Amino acid sequence: MEALVALARVDMAAVDALIIDRMQSPVPVIPLLAEHIIAAGGKRLRPLLTIAAARAATAAFADVDLANPVKLAASVEFIHTATLLHDDVVDGSERRRGKVAAHLIWGSATSVLVGDFLFARAFELMVETGQLRALGILAQASSVIAQGEVLQLTRAHDLNLDQETYLRIISAKTAELFAAAAEAGAVGIGADEKTTSAVRSFGLNLGLAFQLADDALDYGGSSEALGKNTGDDFRERKLTLPVIKAVQRATPAERAFWQRVIEKGDQRDGDLEEAIAILARHGAVEAARAESLRWAGQAKRALDNLPVHPLRAMLFELVDFVIDRVL
Amino acid sequence: MEALVALARVDMAAVDALIIDRMQSPVPVIPLLAEHIIAAGGKRLRPLLTIAAARAATAAFADVDLANPVKLAASVEFIHTATLLHDDVVDGSERRRGKVAAHLIWGSATSVLVGDFLFARAFELMVETGQLRALGILAQASSVIAQGEVLQLTRAHDLNLDQETYLRIISAKTAELFAAAAEAGAVGIGADEKTTSAVRSFGLNLGLAFQLADDALDYGGSSEALGKNTGDDFRERKLTLPVIKAVQRATPAERAFWQRVIEKGDQRDGDLEEAIAILARHGAVEAARAESLRWAGQAKRALDNLPVHPLRAMLFELVDFVIDRVL
Repeated sequence: MEALVALARVDMAAVDALIIDRMQSPVPVIPLLAEHIIAAGGKRLRPLLTIAAARAATAAFADVDLANPVKLAASVEFIHTATLLHDDVVDGSERRRGKVAAHLIWGSATSVLVGDFLFARAFELMVETGQLRALGILAQASSVIAQGEVLQLTRAHDLNLDQETYLRIISAKTAELFAAAAEAGAVGIGADEKTTSAVRSFGLNLGLAFQLADDALDYGGSSEALGKNTGDDFRERKLTLPVIKAVQRATPAERAFWQRVIEKGDQRDGDLEEAIAILARHGAVEAARAESLRWAGQAKRALDNLPVHPLRAMLFELVDFVIDRVL
Repeated sequence: MEALVALARVDMAAVDALIIDRMQSPVPVIPLLAEHIIAAGGKRLRPLLTIAAARAATAAFADVDLANPVKLAASVEFIHTATLLHDDVVDGSERRRGKVAAHLIWGSATSVLVGDFLFARAFELMVETGQLRALGILAQASSVIAQGEVLQLTRAHDLNLDQETYLRIISAKTAELFAAAAEAGAVGIGADEKTTSAVRSFGLNLGLAFQLADDALDYGGSSEALGKNTGDDFRERKLTLPVIKAVQRATPAERAFWQRVIEKGDQRDGDLEEAIAILARHGAVEAARAESLRWAGQAKRALDNLPVHPLRAMLFELVDFVIDRVL
């Protein structure tokens, strides 16, 4: 991971500079709010995928012009940030990237509109690349993401949600942008179809592994590792994979518990601890971890179709880094 | 106006069919909500501008291939609909196009996300045209709109808002999409720069005339003509041009009234009637109407730079139609 970050340092610094430059506006609250969420950091995992895919498609240390992948990477981060802003309004989340969620500071209305602004800015940046195919990939990803979000909303607090539907939701909501970020990077550098398809598959599987790792961590990690509070998913009554697994294996008394805390939202002191105990009883967090590892393995296998050079090993290690948060 | 609608009937039917086709999704609530707001009608003024600009740039009755302008027109309506959905959430509006606002039926979260979906779909459609310049025009318009919305939000209920700032807001919020819709239509058919610039100017000025007509109508029209309730702007405590004019001319007692109902939002029975009486005392609605007519005149003058053919006269009459709602 460190090798990858070192390799991409110059490119990622260019991405960050472009992000700062393009989130500016004569309307002062816009850069203020945007900086609150963007400058808070985050892992920049998605734009890193764009840059890494572009480099992997050529040669790791070759002197290629990454101007377009840099623009596409910044666009990816803008799209991601826009969805975070809208998500936090939709879910009523209180924290994001270790800070108070923007809508609690500037209000839901401003958060929605600044999200719209960043989304539009993403497309302005993509137009500058002149790369219509990359633009199409990220436009389609954006509509897939929105559909995934709505699907999740219509099944919110629904204990009958099964694993297959849940994977469909997170594939759209989360993994699609990982896939599109990588694919756009390869397309942006003019990669061949085999390489483009390989990095897309890598991104998609990595995205699923990432989300499932996140799900497991929310019931087992520390709030520093996650950048949000442990138990957030529980408090927001989200059906994530650990809970889906536990509901499938529930005794009648446990089912009544999940109905009260998730379906009805009647949560009391000690309920999170009780939920964690039930999950442990059924090995539900471990099952989610195992599922995460399964997709991580798929991501690694997708790398077999990339040209052999040092970046391939770095991407292999990137998967472990994402999974590291789980083990 | 009738002549224009008749001329554009086939093209606009194609736009409508494309809109219906592309608002579909396997997630059932998405087409349901989208149909509620899109099929409710609305004037389709913006996509009509795209089609009319494309036709005006060639010859009114020539047998040109409008496949791309039709796609751009549908994109324009999707962008417009997305902003309406987000606007109604942001403003807490209760009615839209003569129907209950979508967020009151499906909730704010779904409205925000379906707006995001339609926005993404707009860009997917634009990518299909392969016309990067048209795409850039509408991407830029989208970011200008969002900035205008945020600017308006930061000055909400602010009695110190002056006419110049207000015109800047509605130029970004409303007129920019009229301008971009027309410009994209001309670019989409490969028009020369003079024509492209003329239809953009026509759209921008028409958009300003349209919004100011709307402002005046909200204090003087019937709810059928407007498709929303008379007095909506008042109830939502919006500073529109009639109120801005009246505040500038207010007696101390009147200023106290505006402070109570707009700044503090303390509204009681009979306040709307009182507001209308104060506006009448200062000729404030008439002043807004005059301002609307001024921009309408500019729109008409922009037509001088178009090729001479029947469509030019039709666009001239379109301005009168928009203003008709005022006179």
